[in-house]
Amino acid sequence: MTGVAHQKWWGWGVEGVAFNHRDKPKMAPFVYDKVGIDLNAPGSPPPNFDDLDVPAPRIGEELTGTLTAAVGREHVRDDDLERVIHTYGKGLPDLVRVRAGDLPRVPDVVVYPADESQVQAVVDAVVAADAVLIPFGGGSNISGSLTPPADEQRTVVSLDLGRMNRVLEVDEEAGLARIQAGVQGPDMEDQLNSRGWTVGHQPDSFRHSTLGGWIATRSSGMQSDKYGDIADITRGLRMVQPGKVVVLRPLPSTSTGPSVREMILGSEGRLGVVTEAWVHVHRLPENRDIIAYLYPSWDAALAAMQEISVSDAAPTVTRVSDANETQFSLSTQKESAGLKGKAQQALFDVLARRGWDLEQACLSYIGYEGGAGKVKAEKNVVGRIVRRHGGIKLGRGPGALYDQKKFDTPYIRDFLLDIGGLADVSETAAPWSKLPEVYMATTRAAREAFERIGVRGFIMCHLSHSYHSGACLYFTFAFAPGVDGAQEQLERYWTVKKAIQQTFVDLGATLSHHHGVGTDHAHWLEEDISPAGTDVMVSLLQGVDPGRNLNPGTIIPAQREW
Amino acid sequence: MTGVAHQKWWGWGVEGVAFNHRDKPKMAPFVYDKVGIDLNAPGSPPPNFDDLDVPAPRIGEELTGTLTAAVGREHVRDDDLERVIHTYGKGLPDLVRVRAGDLPRVPDVVVYPADESQVQAVVDAVVAADAVLIPFGGGSNISGSLTPPADEQRTVVSLDLGRMNRVLEVDEEAGLARIQAGVQGPDMEDQLNSRGWTVGHQPDSFRHSTLGGWIATRSSGMQSDKYGDIADITRGLRMVQPGKVVVLRPLPSTSTGPSVREMILGSEGRLGVVTEAWVHVHRLPENRDIIAYLYPSWDAALAAMQEISVSDAAPTVTRVSDANETQFSLSTQKESAGLKGKAQQALFDVLARRGWDLEQACLSYIGYEGGAGKVKAEKNVVGRIVRRHGGIKLGRGPGALYDQKKFDTPYIRDFLLDIGGLADVSETAAPWSKLPEVYMATTRAAREAFERIGVRGFIMCHLSHSYHSGACLYFTFAFAPGVDGAQEQLERYWTVKKAIQQTFVDLGATLSHHHGVGTDHAHWLEEDISPAGTDVMVSLLQGVDPGRNLNPGTIIPAQREW
Repeated sequence: MTGVAHQKWWGWGVEGVAFNHRDKPKMAPFVYDKVGIDLNAPGSPPPNFDDLDVPAPRIGEELTGTLTAAVGREHVRDDDLERVIHTYGKGLPDLVRVRAGDLPRVPDVVVYPADESQVQAVVDAVVAADAVLIPFGGGSNISGSLTPPADEQRTVVSLDLGRMNRVLEVDEEAGLARIQAGVQGPDMEDQLNSRGWTVGHQPDSFRHSTLGGWIATRSSGMQSDKYGDIADITRGLRMVQPGKVVVLRPLPSTSTGPSVREMILGSEGRLGVVTEAWVHVHRLPENRDIIAYLYPSWDAALAAMQEISVSDAAPTVTRVSDANETQFSLSTQKESAGLKGKAQQALFDVLARRGWDLEQACLSYIGYEGGAGKVKAEKNVVGRIVRRHGGIKLGRGPGALYDQKKFDTPYIRDFLLDIGGLADVSETAAPWSKLPEVYMATTRAAREAFERIGVRGFIMCHLSHSYHSGACLYFTFAFAPGVDGAQEQLERYWTVKKAIQQTFVDLGATLSHHHGVGTDHAHWLEEDISPAGTDVMVSLLQGVDPGRNLNPGTIIPAQREW
Repeated sequence: MTGVAHQKWWGWGVEGVAFNHRDKPKMAPFVYDKVGIDLNAPGSPPPNFDDLDVPAPRIGEELTGTLTAAVGREHVRDDDLERVIHTYGKGLPDLVRVRAGDLPRVPDVVVYPADESQVQAVVDAVVAADAVLIPFGGGSNISGSLTPPADEQRTVVSLDLGRMNRVLEVDEEAGLARIQAGVQGPDMEDQLNSRGWTVGHQPDSFRHSTLGGWIATRSSGMQSDKYGDIADITRGLRMVQPGKVVVLRPLPSTSTGPSVREMILGSEGRLGVVTEAWVHVHRLPENRDIIAYLYPSWDAALAAMQEISVSDAAPTVTRVSDANETQFSLSTQKESAGLKGKAQQALFDVLARRGWDLEQACLSYIGYEGGAGKVKAEKNVVGRIVRRHGGIKLGRGPGALYDQKKFDTPYIRDFLLDIGGLADVSETAAPWSKLPEVYMATTRAAREAFERIGVRGFIMCHLSHSYHSGACLYFTFAFAPGVDGAQEQLERYWTVKKAIQQTFVDLGATLSHHHGVGTDHAHWLEEDISPAGTDVMVSLLQGVDPGRNLNPGTIIPAQREW
């Protein structure tokens, strides 16, 4: 027993938890209307693991022996379930492929080191054997960063950091904690909260992702407006490389040349294995509120969000959904919750009389933290901006509801897959001046792609993570592929996904704000950071890992691998 | 005529401006007491340029021809004055050496490109000729980043960006401006202020440093608490490399793998020549105030500054001087200004009666910007923290005075050099929990070094640039070296400087918070970012510049150059 809990091998989250629409009466009609999928249709049961044809492990006795000596026999696993769990992340292509038993290359062995010295021994053994090492945290990656290249001939070792899950120390004076990289979000926060501290990092994947994974992919969280992206939060770290450890001591800021810290952030295992990090911790806030607002249009909402970003208010959460996502959110309300029933209808009637086109309304959440005076002042500042753009305040109820539900969304994807629907996300960031065009062109590109492949599709979007100069746009799209085979479905999926990503980079937006590059987005790297910028990155990765032993194939486009 | 103004070849700032102590009656007695230097002694006149023995340029006709074709005959300069100006920055060792005519290696030619295509032509010509390229902005560097290696046998080309000094565009909606790298601080702010914008970046070198220089060294400014360090401010850039241009489009944030932007920041010319950048711009603030406070002790001041950094206040400037620097500041007051004469004495009498040891008092400046409500609320928050730590508010007068004088300090160094005194600075950053020990150990190490070399020396310090997890400590030290020759003086200087820097890295503080590595600090790089971290950096730089044509010798310790 490794003692490390994993997500379902075939889907998001833990066994026994699933999305259910039966207490959300408006959802089925909404989905049927938009993409023609009947939520009440009988779904396929989850696939049967025993039906999978899992390739046998390819590993020499010598390497097995060294790994066993490094981490102990019970922490070297080569059974099929372990290896399949470590083959994929949880992106839509991952889920479609694993459900279909598409397993061209599976890690040959999974190891669970207990500490940094064991990580060092594993890394050294892997490189000495000219094998391939893929670090694995919570397995929640959705950019294809975890899957071995299909044509990889060398032994593939998955290094699962799940046993390295402790908060090692809290420097209360500096607001820093030293934490092992394999800790998952809830476990980390439990350990910290009990001492009165929080990191405040809340990506959608929070429940099943790890500190090391956040660092490896440059993660952001719902509250990043206050707490910072993981790149801001991470002040020092240790990373094991073949034969040595990079040690970056915790520093508030430094001018030691090109930032090695910022080279490791986002490196997806290609520079080594992060074993622990010093991260910002904060006292649990005195007050915490998430307030919902409603805008009459997306343009009004965007303009308001930009104004908030340069105002005297510094909210912790800034989020606004476009009209489609607002409609979707309303359709997924439980009858007993939120802006409910009659009260909601009464409000909408009032707004309609004021001339609102309710089909265009956009729902927004703004979070506040701090002393009572600060929170009140910021609400006033935001309230004035919202009103100036024709918006209204809905209040605390919907905000609290959003706060409770925020980590449940990924389960919907599996539910849709069960009944034949494909849903996925693409997110980007761009300057405020470009956001309206990025938004319009992306939704248009998706609609055109749906048309091209002859499906009914739906795309919705929210803005989150506001910065001085711009923000993140987060798109979710769904469609009924109209074909059965995994390969045929994924071809259609990629038609849509590529249309969206290409629009991002064509318009000066980035290929990803916080999901990372992985293999799924590597195709657009040169268009994002320029060919010469890609050369710089290749110089770095190739110099550190000339033998391509460390998670090869991620980040860098295939034709630029060495 | 290149049309580019330069600083004095032998000192800081412009001809005709010099420091004068005659209107500061307390200064001469203070300095005499602390380091035994008589400010009223007759100073040596500035050195005579004609006395210098400037080595002849070593450059082939072919390269001269290519450079002339690239930028035009009048923008290729090889006269002695131009070459000496481009030999050194303005660090203390630079000034001592240039005044002494110590010119073992001088750039062979200085070129002034007008635009990026000319920069490209110069870079390509230099690399084709296997020469060495050193980019030059305002020449204010104080880490030894501008000086050619003494033993460099190849032709050395100084590329002066002074003609590339325009604000190219302002994206008002995104709060971003595209600005050429060669613009100096005041020129840039003039161009922006006239349109209602500011970058808000105010390093001490502001009047004689450039945007490109700030980026190349990871500069910070007095107002970085609000406006961010240059690494935060710079959202996109263009950098010329041999045969190509790295183009990073302006993005609020991105997860495109290891950050190429953060590799270029702090690269001191070793990856190429930054030609322009997209930087944050802000509307000129509605209100701007700098308030002075006085604490009874350094420990009380540090504790208060830490509390302010995690409070609901977000001041633009956070600065506090130790007792020595406070005494020095009081000694340099004009009789007619600041906390003046009788009022000051009356205040000090009151504090003495309250039990203050006025020799231990610490002067602090806190800056506020924003709407009236925000400024008022923040002053209240800070005021409560100051009082809780036994401090008192002095008010606006001293703050305004500091604000006016803040860029004049560097002139004092030349004045001291004229009368035989050596003064320089070392700055670092560390977590709050380590700052008291870093402070004590550093001042002790300096005093021990003074003793070892048998001189009367003085060291003072201020804290600035507060972050969530720590702050910058900025030390200034001065002594009368007691010997005459430049080499002998510098030997003594390095004894002190090395003792200070070694203490930083021994105690977990960084080798520099914002002056960069250059050649002066390269010795401590491995102790700061670890040997393996240095390997990562070497992989990057060597991969990009295998022939060591781009500012070789900076950042990387000599024994690690390839």
